[in-house]
Amino acid sequence: MTKRDLTPLFKPKNVAIIGASADPGKVGHIILLNYLNEGYPGKIYLVNKNTAPILGRKVYGSVLEIKERLDSVVIAIPAAAVPEVLEECGKAKVRSVVLVSGGFSEVGNVELQDQITAMAKKYDIALVGPNCLGIMNPRSRVNTLFLPAYKLSKPRIGGVSFIAQSGAVGSVILDLIEGEGFGLSKFVSYGNAADVDEVDLMEYLMNDDETNVIVMYTEGIKRGKAFLELARKITKAKPVVILKAGRTEAGASAAHSHTAALAGSYESHEAVFKQFGFTIANDLTDLLYYAKIFESEKAPQGNRIAIITNGGGAGVLTTDAISSSKYLRLAELSEASKKALSKTMPLLVNIRNPLDLAGDAGDKRYHDALYPIINDPNVDMVIVIILFQTPGADSKLAAEIIGLKEIMAKPMITIATGTQYTEMHKVMMESSGLPVYDSPRAAAMALEALFRYYAYKNHKE
Amino acid sequence: MTKRDLTPLFKPKNVAIIGASADPGKVGHIILLNYLNEGYPGKIYLVNKNTAPILGRKVYGSVLEIKERLDSVVIAIPAAAVPEVLEECGKAKVRSVVLVSGGFSEVGNVELQDQITAMAKKYDIALVGPNCLGIMNPRSRVNTLFLPAYKLSKPRIGGVSFIAQSGAVGSVILDLIEGEGFGLSKFVSYGNAADVDEVDLMEYLMNDDETNVIVMYTEGIKRGKAFLELARKITKAKPVVILKAGRTEAGASAAHSHTAALAGSYESHEAVFKQFGFTIANDLTDLLYYAKIFESEKAPQGNRIAIITNGGGAGVLTTDAISSSKYLRLAELSEASKKALSKTMPLLVNIRNPLDLAGDAGDKRYHDALYPIINDPNVDMVIVIILFQTPGADSKLAAEIIGLKEIMAKPMITIATGTQYTEMHKVMMESSGLPVYDSPRAAAMALEALFRYYAYKNHKE
Repeated sequence: MTKRDLTPLFKPKNVAIIGASADPGKVGHIILLNYLNEGYPGKIYLVNKNTAPILGRKVYGSVLEIKERLDSVVIAIPAAAVPEVLEECGKAKVRSVVLVSGGFSEVGNVELQDQITAMAKKYDIALVGPNCLGIMNPRSRVNTLFLPAYKLSKPRIGGVSFIAQSGAVGSVILDLIEGEGFGLSKFVSYGNAADVDEVDLMEYLMNDDETNVIVMYTEGIKRGKAFLELARKITKAKPVVILKAGRTEAGASAAHSHTAALAGSYESHEAVFKQFGFTIANDLTDLLYYAKIFESEKAPQGNRIAIITNGGGAGVLTTDAISSSKYLRLAELSEASKKALSKTMPLLVNIRNPLDLAGDAGDKRYHDALYPIINDPNVDMVIVIILFQTPGADSKLAAEIIGLKEIMAKPMITIATGTQYTEMHKVMMESSGLPVYDSPRAAAMALEALFRYYAYKNHKE
Repeated sequence: MTKRDLTPLFKPKNVAIIGASADPGKVGHIILLNYLNEGYPGKIYLVNKNTAPILGRKVYGSVLEIKERLDSVVIAIPAAAVPEVLEECGKAKVRSVVLVSGGFSEVGNVELQDQITAMAKKYDIALVGPNCLGIMNPRSRVNTLFLPAYKLSKPRIGGVSFIAQSGAVGSVILDLIEGEGFGLSKFVSYGNAADVDEVDLMEYLMNDDETNVIVMYTEGIKRGKAFLELARKITKAKPVVILKAGRTEAGASAAHSHTAALAGSYESHEAVFKQFGFTIANDLTDLLYYAKIFESEKAPQGNRIAIITNGGGAGVLTTDAISSSKYLRLAELSEASKKALSKTMPLLVNIRNPLDLAGDAGDKRYHDALYPIINDPNVDMVIVIILFQTPGADSKLAAEIIGLKEIMAKPMITIATGTQYTEMHKVMMESSGLPVYDSPRAAAMALEALFRYYAYKNHKE
């Protein structure tokens, strides 16, 4: 397997749009606007047979007329016209292409797709697509996604890289990433994978310093052997979260109808994922729970969890969730912690784990409770439950927890469940790098994944 | 077991507040404001040793001074003073009491609580509490909940009745019910259960025509035998969703510390719940998934599910979720449906289940797809997936699905996942009685619960 250099795709020095259009409804216009809106600093070339200027910019009739060698060319023209322009790209020594157009193997047009694949190989072009949304890399201000901007929000810059064949799943994920408040490194919807496929992308992201965690949605791995080779290495470098749709027979049949994925049984996939320390998600929501914890948290020293809460019931439910995990257990607080807590806690607080601070607890009581626990050698990870509906919980409390997170070496996450007032604080905490979960189940899943991944990684090294 | 009449608690003809206060920060003021804000139509008596008028209203020194017999008295005074006023309530033949004050068994003051219990029995007062939020019944405009209004939202009137010991869990649930958009019938936080307990409340709600589904959070059932007797009957009347915290040993220990719950093993509880067709939730979020489907959906004719989607990947994931359930299966569309669909669907739509309408599908294509399926004898329940991030999905589509729901005899639910634009439509659909789920997992859980409950109910009848 030759490693492919996908740098021109993700960090192009210049770009061209073939099928650039003056019509605001056209993909070739939306993508131009994207580059302008993102503030892309390189040269943007526009290409169209109709060479009337667009937004006052010069339009070339062909990439062959452009003097510079092009790093990245986006093609947004009807399928039938693609081979001709791709041939020109080859002759112009274009380094990479994002082919967003549909009308290839996904509608049975296999021959046309094979032709594209052959041309990409012949001219050594790294081609993403066809039938895809393409690439978003907010750091280099690349964005080929032609999505209705008012329908979904754009995430902040961060460490999660996401790859998916499906544009629809990809756009949901992008929307949810923003909603969850964590940060995106790279996003790729690679569609039919005529050339660049998941293995190429995973390998690139494995070596990408801006990516802390690789998250992928797939309906079937095409190059099994290459994937297996990569799987051995990739989780040594960084965590990989995978959602493989088509787990059941009916699901696999639906996947075949969707992307013509012809994958082996899910069991065989799953065995590989497990063997090599992948984190396996069963649902899009689970995928996000995992992505979030891997983005912000480092390796825990062990599996002993302390739970601090302002609602007794929520503490019990979280204890159930932690105790139900085969991999996690409740911490036994050290004598020093107990002594410190018994000095600062009011009488109604029972000094134990879970530590129920009661509904009137505010920033001061949380501070006094967390301080010994941060330094407790018996505690490896901390769950802070905040029911923002209670009288004592307010923005000062959220700020206090954010402050403690900053000085905290151990993984610490929050559980907060509710609507407006809670959501406001969730955003406040998430955007400060403190992961917030909406249920004990989700929190336990995330901490288990974190523990298991680093146990795998450290064991194998 | 004598059936207790809790009508005076839930539908009082008149109310009194002992500990009524002019201080806006005091519970005895907040509860008065509640009654005024809700528009409670009966007479509201205020009682306090200090008889200075409050908001221009007369204040009585004791309930004994009130001439009318009182249906419901709310007591919000320090624990030590409770026996004296409760004695007066007894002498005044008060029918029911909501004792919100804390300071009883939950802080080790067992003797004081026993005294309260004995007085309630002696005078035949239905007493809720102590240490509770009390009762909300929006239809009769009763609301004893002293919660900070800006921290949580109030749900609309509907068919879900919720009971919990815990005030904190209760307030989270209330907030989430509003967030989910479905409707509340009765809410009870019953605290230490010195007198009225979960069995009394369940029995009342079993016979309450305004309640479609009973949802409860408990850390331990106190009267095992009475509960068992009731369990045999209650699920014949209506669905019951139960979240029993303290499932694990550590959780049970935490529950004991929280509410002194001394329950048998979770396994023994669970066996009873299962035997009598209770729907068992493991998390607050799951509790809501179940509550929602039982509020709006009637008995399905079978377990065959049709899936319609505008995102292929979401269709595959939902197929996986349905196929992973032991109780559900994918419907095989009838020949008549296939024929009708092949006439109306564009060529790129593969006529199968799941039916992937593609990302450009709007209201018309959804209508054309759903119409045959509504009438398909091979389909018992329908999942409509709408990815609102796609170009074709908009408010017209949401309105179309709401319209089809109105004429639909079969259970139909929606999956929509996303942030602002999606949430807006979620509220729109939920408030029209169309349940919306945020993941395939949640949707499958809900439909499975619906199918299992009615299979149990119809089998046993």
